[in-house]
Amino acid sequence: MTLETVSTNRSHGGIQGVYRHPSRETGTDMTFSVFVPPQAEAGEKRPVVWYLSGLTCTHANVTEKGEYRRACAELGLIFVAPDTSPRGDDVPDDEGYDFGKGAGFYVDATEAPWSKHFRMESYVARELPELIAAHFPADMARQAITGHSMGGHGALTLALKNPGRFKSVSAFAPIVAPARVPWGEKALTGYLGSDRAAWRRYDAAALIEDGARVPDILVDQGTADNFLAEQLRPELLAEACDKAGIPLILRVREGYDHSYYFISTFMEDHLRWHAERLAR
Amino acid sequence: MTLETVSTNRSHGGIQGVYRHPSRETGTDMTFSVFVPPQAEAGEKRPVVWYLSGLTCTHANVTEKGEYRRACAELGLIFVAPDTSPRGDDVPDDEGYDFGKGAGFYVDATEAPWSKHFRMESYVARELPELIAAHFPADMARQAITGHSMGGHGALTLALKNPGRFKSVSAFAPIVAPARVPWGEKALTGYLGSDRAAWRRYDAAALIEDGARVPDILVDQGTADNFLAEQLRPELLAEACDKAGIPLILRVREGYDHSYYFISTFMEDHLRWHAERLAR
Repeated sequence: MTLETVSTNRSHGGIQGVYRHPSRETGTDMTFSVFVPPQAEAGEKRPVVWYLSGLTCTHANVTEKGEYRRACAELGLIFVAPDTSPRGDDVPDDEGYDFGKGAGFYVDATEAPWSKHFRMESYVARELPELIAAHFPADMARQAITGHSMGGHGALTLALKNPGRFKSVSAFAPIVAPARVPWGEKALTGYLGSDRAAWRRYDAAALIEDGARVPDILVDQGTADNFLAEQLRPELLAEACDKAGIPLILRVREGYDHSYYFISTFMEDHLRWHAERLAR
Repeated sequence: MTLETVSTNRSHGGIQGVYRHPSRETGTDMTFSVFVPPQAEAGEKRPVVWYLSGLTCTHANVTEKGEYRRACAELGLIFVAPDTSPRGDDVPDDEGYDFGKGAGFYVDATEAPWSKHFRMESYVARELPELIAAHFPADMARQAITGHSMGGHGALTLALKNPGRFKSVSAFAPIVAPARVPWGEKALTGYLGSDRAAWRRYDAAALIEDGARVPDILVDQGTADNFLAEQLRPELLAEACDKAGIPLILRVREGYDHSYYFISTFMEDHLRWHAERLAR
């Protein structure tokens, strides 16, 4: 597993790095960022927080705008931010911002031409963790996962499908039920085909209905988010959690929108919430 | 004085705005950002921290990467980030990144063709403060100024030339003596002509040698900064301050470079330092 260092910068006492590697899952080069907190420089293995990004994003958006390093340095957390899709001239794309490049939806596509490269579930759930374990001072027995919008969907579904892997899961303005909203319907039809039964393992609310469980979930959602009513629909997660007996902390934030100005405001809260559970 | 709102986003309990206006000084539209902390929403006037950016930057770099909102919200500080030059097709430019657009050096140019639009000293020191006072809940009796690299030069020289205006001045990796380094020699020759006597009022070290004073100065400087030895030369500021009896707190930061990963790490420190002096 070769890993190329694109850049490293000292920040908040730790090292913010960007790395590239040829991916066996996507068949392309993939770029991701890792923040290693100061505690790890002394050789101590530290817990890992995965952050999955939203539509149109690369690793760079949260790395530049997420404001996570100060809290990660204090709490001793490694912070990993993958890309949202395969990239490159060989990779098929769509005219919309919400399908194809920048919009992998954390699924393993089964439909041509997407199935060759769009294997983001296997990439994020299997290949990248192996790479992190091999190359960084990561305590892989202590992992947490979070994400924004499409990445909130990714975080919720990966936590639900890999019981015990993540000590905690949270999300910022997540797509909670892609099978029932336009973004998800377009993406899941494209990547998985029109048989809606195949969609259920990529839909957090459906996974919970079908029996998947996590200990609890933290979600922040702004009221001024343009996508709230049509694409995000947190009430569908609330209903599923309520029926399943999963404690859901759903914080409704007055006046906040869908941007990184919202995410960065509540990033520290989420990291403290994860750190508490990672220490148990 | 008309002011167009480009965007506003709720963040860290306050409002991060971006605004545009036709400038009488530059003869162009100018864009800047303002963060108004939560304390001001209740109608309370709050102190202002000016942040002047470095080469190639617009208002957007610090607005996205500066990590200042959390501390400004806690301390009740308004944070203003101007652009670094006039913009537009009518504005002359240079092939280099270090002269012309994105490189106004906070001077009023006297040489053609620059003198028509490149009036960044008057813009930042006079026009923009009038606009801030008229449109925002700003206590203009309590102002502080800071900046990065070329903007550190701007902060130091504006504080030295406007005694009493700023309660405090600090800088991140500033150009402290532009008349004695390549970036400054190119820019000052271009904007002001070859008579070096005219350069002294745009050179912090020279201003101090010529009698200008501030109560004290805080500077952070990384040791892994590529521009340290040739362009920044903090020892020239240290010598001038030492001779003049100005207390200079020069913090040398092991392993930090010239990027926003460095600035964002020490932003909170600087804001606390300013807040203390603004409260006196």
